[in-house]
Amino acid sequence: MSSPRLHDPAVRGFASDNAAGAHPEVLDALRAANDGHVGSYGGDPYTAALAGVVRRHFGEAAEVHPVLSGTGANVVALQALTRRWESVVCARGAHVDDDEGGAPEHVGGMKLLTLPAADGKVTPDALEAAVRRSQTPMRAPAGALSLTQSTEVGTCYTPEETAALTRRAHDLGLRVHLDGARLANAAAALGTDLRALTTDAGVDAVSLGATKNGALLADAVVVCAPDAAEGVERLRKQSLQLASKMRFVSAQLLALLADDLWLRSARHANAMAARLADAVREVPGVEISRPVQVNAVFAALPEPARRRLQERFAFHVWDEPSGEVRWMTAFDTTAEDVDTFAAAVAEEVRRDLAPGATRGAGA
Amino acid sequence: MSSPRLHDPAVRGFASDNAAGAHPEVLDALRAANDGHVGSYGGDPYTAALAGVVRRHFGEAAEVHPVLSGTGANVVALQALTRRWESVVCARGAHVDDDEGGAPEHVGGMKLLTLPAADGKVTPDALEAAVRRSQTPMRAPAGALSLTQSTEVGTCYTPEETAALTRRAHDLGLRVHLDGARLANAAAALGTDLRALTTDAGVDAVSLGATKNGALLADAVVVCAPDAAEGVERLRKQSLQLASKMRFVSAQLLALLADDLWLRSARHANAMAARLADAVREVPGVEISRPVQVNAVFAALPEPARRRLQERFAFHVWDEPSGEVRWMTAFDTTAEDVDTFAAAVAEEVRRDLAPGATRGAGA
Amino acid sequence: MSSPRLHDPAVRGFASDNAAGAHPEVLDALRAANDGHVGSYGGDPYTAALAGVVRRHFGEAAEVHPVLSGTGANVVALQALTRRWESVVCARGAHVDDDEGGAPEHVGGMKLLTLPAADGKVTPDALEAAVRRSQTPMRAPAGALSLTQSTEVGTCYTPEETAALTRRAHDLGLRVHLDGARLANAAAALGTDLRALTTDAGVDAVSLGATKNGALLADAVVVCAPDAAEGVERLRKQSLQLASKMRFVSAQLLALLADDLWLRSARHANAMAARLADAVREVPGVEISRPVQVNAVFAALPEPARRRLQERFAFHVWDEPSGEVRWMTAFDTTAEDVDTFAAAVAEEVRRDLAPGATRGAGA
Amino acid sequence: MSSPRLHDPAVRGFASDNAAGAHPEVLDALRAANDGHVGSYGGDPYTAALAGVVRRHFGEAAEVHPVLSGTGANVVALQALTRRWESVVCARGAHVDDDEGGAPEHVGGMKLLTLPAADGKVTPDALEAAVRRSQTPMRAPAGALSLTQSTEVGTCYTPEETAALTRRAHDLGLRVHLDGARLANAAAALGTDLRALTTDAGVDAVSLGATKNGALLADAVVVCAPDAAEGVERLRKQSLQLASKMRFVSAQLLALLADDLWLRSARHANAMAARLADAVREVPGVEISRPVQVNAVFAALPEPARRRLQERFAFHVWDEPSGEVRWMTAFDTTAEDVDTFAAAVAEEVRRDLAPGATRGAGA
Repeated sequence: MSSPRLHDPAVRGFASDNAAGAHPEVLDALRAANDGHVGSYGGDPYTAALAGVVRRHFGEAAEVHPVLSGTGANVVALQALTRRWESVVCARGAHVDDDEGGAPEHVGGMKLLTLPAADGKVTPDALEAAVRRSQTPMRAPAGALSLTQSTEVGTCYTPEETAALTRRAHDLGLRVHLDGARLANAAAALGTDLRALTTDAGVDAVSLGATKNGALLADAVVVCAPDAAEGVERLRKQSLQLASKMRFVSAQLLALLADDLWLRSARHANAMAARLADAVREVPGVEISRPVQVNAVFAALPEPARRRLQERFAFHVWDEPSGEVRWMTAFDTTAEDVDTFAAAVAEEVRRDLAPGATRGAGA
Repeated sequence: MSSPRLHDPAVRGFASDNAAGAHPEVLDALRAANDGHVGSYGGDPYTAALAGVVRRHFGEAAEVHPVLSGTGANVVALQALTRRWESVVCARGAHVDDDEGGAPEHVGGMKLLTLPAADGKVTPDALEAAVRRSQTPMRAPAGALSLTQSTEVGTCYTPEETAALTRRAHDLGLRVHLDGARLANAAAALGTDLRALTTDAGVDAVSLGATKNGALLADAVVVCAPDAAEGVERLRKQSLQLASKMRFVSAQLLALLADDLWLRSARHANAMAARLADAVREVPGVEISRPVQVNAVFAALPEPARRRLQERFAFHVWDEPSGEVRWMTAFDTTAEDVDTFAAAVAEEVRRDLAPGATRGAGA
Repeated sequence: MSSPRLHDPAVRGFASDNAAGAHPEVLDALRAANDGHVGSYGGDPYTAALAGVVRRHFGEAAEVHPVLSGTGANVVALQALTRRWESVVCARGAHVDDDEGGAPEHVGGMKLLTLPAADGKVTPDALEAAVRRSQTPMRAPAGALSLTQSTEVGTCYTPEETAALTRRAHDLGLRVHLDGARLANAAAALGTDLRALTTDAGVDAVSLGATKNGALLADAVVVCAPDAAEGVERLRKQSLQLASKMRFVSAQLLALLADDLWLRSARHANAMAARLADAVREVPGVEISRPVQVNAVFAALPEPARRRLQERFAFHVWDEPSGEVRWMTAFDTTAEDVDTFAAAVAEEVRRDLAPGATRGAGA
Repeated sequence: MSSPRLHDPAVRGFASDNAAGAHPEVLDALRAANDGHVGSYGGDPYTAALAGVVRRHFGEAAEVHPVLSGTGANVVALQALTRRWESVVCARGAHVDDDEGGAPEHVGGMKLLTLPAADGKVTPDALEAAVRRSQTPMRAPAGALSLTQSTEVGTCYTPEETAALTRRAHDLGLRVHLDGARLANAAAALGTDLRALTTDAGVDAVSLGATKNGALLADAVVVCAPDAAEGVERLRKQSLQLASKMRFVSAQLLALLADDLWLRSARHANAMAARLADAVREVPGVEISRPVQVNAVFAALPEPARRRLQERFAFHVWDEPSGEVRWMTAFDTTAEDVDTFAAAVAEEVRRDLAPGATRGAGA
């Protein structure tokens, strides 16, 4: 029996890059990896091939451990980089702090030491102050720094910024984790390869996001500095991240990384965000509230217009008190999607400005 | 660029049902669910449709929470069924005890109280003794019973056996979990529907295995008795089991459960195991060591033959000291696969019995 | 052989109330409880008597569970008040957040949601905002509010303030914990009994501090609302807080609570802090930086004077960047101790102000 | 107000060595350590002196970390000896497995791999088999061996037996922990010093029991091989085992260890058990069921006599199904206590054997 389609495949919104489906090449890869029997739990040729591809991207020492979710990658990596009693420094509002349901604390038993970061980015001096403070006997000493690339607010660490942070962290005895849920978007934005933002910048382990980059269900822990991370395989199993039919996770990662699908997809998503920002920037009443570097546009607009717009298109309010919204693009967002949406933004905002318009409370 | 095939799709062994790939209908379902944007984290029409299908199989009160792995399903369900300080009773050698890398202890902080069980099955009296013993102030009191259906050694609990256990467990104040990694195989073997082995037999929550039944990567926690399980959604997120692009997990489960693919696949796998057992039962030197109820054949055979056979076909030694082996079939095992393998078994075993054969140490 | 005295019993500083020893009546109580055999793990007459005394202080429904440390009391209580997946709201800088080495996260697996609180106190509106924010599917929902009485910065919640907080918390579905490491000092300062600040103000469970109030090693979890806290006895054992020779923990608590030793000791410590504040308030160059309500004086003074003073008397710098210091008094601080110290403060501060004095960098 | 005595100090039973109070010299030590202010959390002269005394007993490399309970010592030590993902091998029925309420799993997240051990003792071959089995990818690999000295059933490992086990464990890559809740009794029984049973026999870390040896509330983690145990100070804090007024814990340990109080107390307790065994051995109907090496006598006696005896004296049934009882002696058990009890045993057992006696069901 053929499976029914239960949704309208022509509808695309601006809610999140994980509202998108999978890239057709990823689906093709699943089909190619199917049929016949192979070793389970990673003893298959797709996982073996992935190891080589990841070394090409992240350096000859790099090791890859496919996992089942981005939160899974973060929690496995952070456990591998720290000892039982150590805490983790990160930006306040980082995904690991604010969007993982307390998983680092629940699964890893680890305290997060959060630093205020208006632009989503940690600085070396703020890091050092937090680390030194954590080292008194009454506190849980910091064992790792976790950075996010690109950050929750769409900013990127340059290779130089990353290197300055990892240098300071290493000097302080910490290991460095990079949550790369959108690493591809950052590399595309900065015009670098993956290695420049990770291994070459001193990062010890990366949560390599694939789902937001066009996979169905696939992420990975990439260990750039094997001496810094212990027990990843064991922790992956113990933290519920080991797939039995691993070939299907590895095949998705291969589809993205073997050639340049990861980069094409990220570049396209970024370009669509830039197109959107350009289109709405001049609309009176709309303010682009943050720099647009990757595939997100943050904006402020009058509340009545925002509410009407949400009835027409899916997107999230980023900050409830201020009403700031986030519009995200994905690998499959089209120029037409953007233009239609931008026109709708302009239309809804202008409606309240028109003579005789009924004004909403928040206008 | 098209993804290359890195394995021989014509090779199938007897190592495990998770060495198989995905059923073609499951892959088709992924394709049908792809394209366009839908709500992430479960806010999609596939997850909504799954809820109705699961109620059809498990009763009107049943709730389904798709997860990423079987171990994930077990650990989420057991946490939801117990309070922080409670322990879990299970058969010694159960997957949750012996094959999950210490995940229940690591993620859930829970102690397992294991009962000796030669045939993989817990009895009401052994359960009661363990529960009463656990209730002294120095111990962690039992909060849940975890059963496995079918068990690690290929046996099944009948509906009556299950009901007797759940009754006793409930009388003792416990909740009941069923690890149904191969629930489909048990239902096929016993000629029942899924409900007869779970909800109707008093089970409170089920780890519903789909991966071994023909999915790529999909399992689920099915809560049969919502009053008995708290916080499943929260625990799923916190235990790293929440997929962002949930539609693809739900679509796999739908493909299996919406019609009868789950049953066809399980029946076929079981039939192939029966065919294999029948074919080797009369081979001198081979002993079928356990009853063959589902899709596994356990056997004893001379070590030299076993070693040569393992060079030709993938399968596992189940018990290293005794040399007992396990041969598993899957939804895609063919009658020809079985016949070829059975012939090889006979050939290898007979070789050592032939006049003038070199006899190995373990023969 | 008689045990040697290795310290000078005449030396008392202003470092902390836990730098003090035990009240002589507490030591007498240990001696009275000694000799002969009694039930272990709490099956003794001292623990039984304590139950009645605690009901007298905290109301007829109150239950007491003696534990081994203040951190132990907090972590046991917070686990009992929350479900596995819930987080805890507290003031940033609260002991549970900042001085317990990550124990709530490590032992309880719980995330803390910290609220900025310049005066150490949470407000109902800030609580509500944090709770509502925590209830989205990506976060760990708040299950309990933890207050500290008196706070780390020496302020107290009035009964009315506490009641307003517990009311809001309960309306939001939370349970309320009160870290009463210095509850006695707060009650003495506010002129209330213990019940007015806890049970009558809607608090569900209290970490009742005895060590800082004159015990050697004794704290307790007092459950004011038994319906709100589950499994305290089990969690106490499982969280390493069950004493085998419990009679000696209970006897200390009895010594403090059976009569009014708790109040006499707290009043005295508070009075000594007030005396100190009065004595140094008028010293030019010394600024009392926070209201003095309980047994701590926070002050700013020139760095060279502070450094010289620390060579003569033990006390802590509270805030390294600003140089703010904390001077604590204890049950055994004498008026002479205070006067001697105040004179030294004045002497050291004036030295730098004298004509021709060498001025330090921080003066 | 003087604290009342609530119990009869002349009553002593045979329930447990933790039913006893504290040795008078220990109480004297508390008094000597009292008064004045000293550094808290271990920054005091008693803790400093203890370090030297422990080096004398356990070797020059040994480090001591006083803690609050025996379970606390075990859980801190095991965490320090293992990495996050490792499991611990111990005898089935060991205190850490059977009497700690699931604390190793709850606090340390660690799985215990238990070995059957009729006499309470692990053997090198059983250890090796368990370790090798744990090293497959689906299991939690063993990281430490935990031995108990003396064991729960009153047996002792000789120095040679211990050395054979630690050698095998180290060869397998494990660290070795010794639960020495009754280490003093074992040393007294074997005629060795503490070092011969620990450091010299290759043990890496010891839970040094003081409470059962005559302290009120004091145990310690002694690290014999500092390279094998990481982060003990941090784990002690994080696992709720750090006393603020540490001087009082250290003073108890000093009282026992500085001179030979530990040995005198253990020898006496052992001698009293031997006296009891001798006295009842010849009573018809009483069977000493295990060798009497330390301060416990295990025996079988008719159930009616046992029940009557329990109404007169406190002691525990060790094994409910078989009715085996455990009689423990303590540092304060007198020869008269033993003789009175032995006479009562004989009297109660004989009563049922007398002509015309009413025979109970279990006789």
